[in-house]
Amino acid sequence: MSPNDAGPATRLLNDTFLRACLREPTPYTPLWLMRQAGRYLPEYNATRARAGSFMGLATSPDFATEVTLQPLARWPLDAAILFSDILTVPDAMGLGLSFAAGEGPRFAHPVRDEAAVAKLAVPDLECLRYVFDAVRSIRRALVSKDSEGRAAARVPLIGFSGSPWTLACYMVEGSGSDDYRTVKTMLYARPDLLHRILEINAQAVAAYLNAQVQAGAQAVMIFDSWGGVLSDAAFRRFSLHYTRAVVAALQREAEGRRVPCIVFTKGGGGWLEEIAACGADVVGLDWTTDLGQARQRIDDCVALQGNLDPAVLFAPPEIVAQEARAVVASFGAAQRADGRFGGHVFNLGHGISQHTPPEHVSALVEAVHGA
Amino acid sequence: MSPNDAGPATRLLNDTFLRACLREPTPYTPLWLMRQAGRYLPEYNATRARAGSFMGLATSPDFATEVTLQPLARWPLDAAILFSDILTVPDAMGLGLSFAAGEGPRFAHPVRDEAAVAKLAVPDLECLRYVFDAVRSIRRALVSKDSEGRAAARVPLIGFSGSPWTLACYMVEGSGSDDYRTVKTMLYARPDLLHRILEINAQAVAAYLNAQVQAGAQAVMIFDSWGGVLSDAAFRRFSLHYTRAVVAALQREAEGRRVPCIVFTKGGGGWLEEIAACGADVVGLDWTTDLGQARQRIDDCVALQGNLDPAVLFAPPEIVAQEARAVVASFGAAQRADGRFGGHVFNLGHGISQHTPPEHVSALVEAVHGA
Repeated sequence: MSPNDAGPATRLLNDTFLRACLREPTPYTPLWLMRQAGRYLPEYNATRARAGSFMGLATSPDFATEVTLQPLARWPLDAAILFSDILTVPDAMGLGLSFAAGEGPRFAHPVRDEAAVAKLAVPDLECLRYVFDAVRSIRRALVSKDSEGRAAARVPLIGFSGSPWTLACYMVEGSGSDDYRTVKTMLYARPDLLHRILEINAQAVAAYLNAQVQAGAQAVMIFDSWGGVLSDAAFRRFSLHYTRAVVAALQREAEGRRVPCIVFTKGGGGWLEEIAACGADVVGLDWTTDLGQARQRIDDCVALQGNLDPAVLFAPPEIVAQEARAVVASFGAAQRADGRFGGHVFNLGHGISQHTPPEHVSALVEAVHGA
Repeated sequence: MSPNDAGPATRLLNDTFLRACLREPTPYTPLWLMRQAGRYLPEYNATRARAGSFMGLATSPDFATEVTLQPLARWPLDAAILFSDILTVPDAMGLGLSFAAGEGPRFAHPVRDEAAVAKLAVPDLECLRYVFDAVRSIRRALVSKDSEGRAAARVPLIGFSGSPWTLACYMVEGSGSDDYRTVKTMLYARPDLLHRILEINAQAVAAYLNAQVQAGAQAVMIFDSWGGVLSDAAFRRFSLHYTRAVVAALQREAEGRRVPCIVFTKGGGGWLEEIAACGADVVGLDWTTDLGQARQRIDDCVALQGNLDPAVLFAPPEIVAQEARAVVASFGAAQRADGRFGGHVFNLGHGISQHTPPEHVSALVEAVHGA
């Protein structure tokens, strides 16, 4: 069924992102940017200052809606992504999330021993109501008018969560880490405890993403930001196994449309074949893997999202345009007999840097849409 | 020619490391550990305290000899590695290296613009004499007696350098970096400047490694610690191209023996085939790549070094032993018709952590030698 069969309330003015996720042809390569509502935008910093803190921003549906729409006001991006944080779920589990200035996230109650693991449970989704309220609010704010004056959404809204493993890293370490010493010690010394955490996380993440879909998210993305720090064998057992469990439990249709699921494992290029077989519609790739080679390896069984190095955006606009076109070309649009694109969602290979000049993003968007 | 044809002054009591590098059979899998002379050893910390600083340690042939031999006094490791730092070369170029406590390396004069690049030159190797003196001193200290009372070296000595790209990262950034913003901006905006730095680095690294070999290093290792942060295309152009140039310029025989060359690219598993074709005898792998699959991909055209996750060493000794045996098994010794090992040098996939309990290393060494 075409996305636009979904009735007036959820008709989309621009469904290129959803089509590309489902490997349907699109007139151009759609793009959005990880962390597109972020500190590189002066208007974001202004809103954040009003909100008082990062969590003040994330927990207010009004502020979250405001910043979610900011990059869309600047550029014709092809999707919106919920403004939130991957650590909302462990926070709702009672771990006590805070963001110290300049230090990144920190949990007051990390999960490091048998007693802490025994107390851990899938959180009451009511504690995450602010997220679902934000989804509903953003969906309303995205409604515009089509050329005949009928209500329609400008672009689809993506919901997201951290993967069970990535959440476990933060939950056990209690903060970011250089070497993942605490969580890896648990992995090797007490795998039973880690498996228990991951089982709970998988259930929580699935419930969380499904509630986002029920609130109006039209695609979902699972960020396995730290899958790439694991050994080959450990990645399969402790990361991919639980990501697969989440994907299997997801609601895949809403409002009469397929809800695509994107799985992104930073540093996961070596496991592309296995990740592509996890049940997701789209696999996100960082910039270390060539998109054309990736397509060959997986025989186009899923769509691909990525994968410009966000550092390219520090170069002058003409170089940004050239490198963006190279990424589009590397996917190999010409391989389609009808000469139209299909199966590629352009993105960065990681979140956009706070040091990015916004005018360079203009060059990027123009280059990708014009490639 | 067998390593032990090399005459009494350079006869080796244990040549398993050199044999494995050249894919010759060995009675067991030889091992050494990246950063084996390091802060996890109380005796290292005591020597460092006497030296006053890290550079005080590295620039003194006596201290460098002392710490190089410390891990060999504890365990029957199969190679010694020169105690030094990858940043000695840019320091000799006049960039002004210092190590602020708890902050890592810092250069007083980073190379960021046309004028700084124009001034850059291959350093006078005389400025690095302390390194070659350390090599000579360590070689003397490694001499022992064989069962018939004749002089012979206990194990071979490995020399090393950073790769041209990895050195350039530090030279341009001026320190470590999370996002390599400065050097990547140069890469995309002024590739001509970066290529010039890399050409000079390649010449300097080749001359530096050859001088180590002339001083007595019996194998050399090139650390491309930051190759894995580059995009697929940029890795080939800015990292591998210059590593290949270094390898091509290396002296490959000394004292009547082949001098094996090891190339290690952290995060380079995706480029294994290309790295294996760079001219090195051995490719180092981090723990994200399975050794057996790696062998298949490169059809055993080079030996492999690696690849236990150093975090495994935080687990109890019996788990350390189990995981070490799994790495040996993953290489697949049984594939040799004669049932003996060949082509695998066991190592960690990264330097050993300062938080490693030394007694866990005992379990590791025993497990690898007994596997």
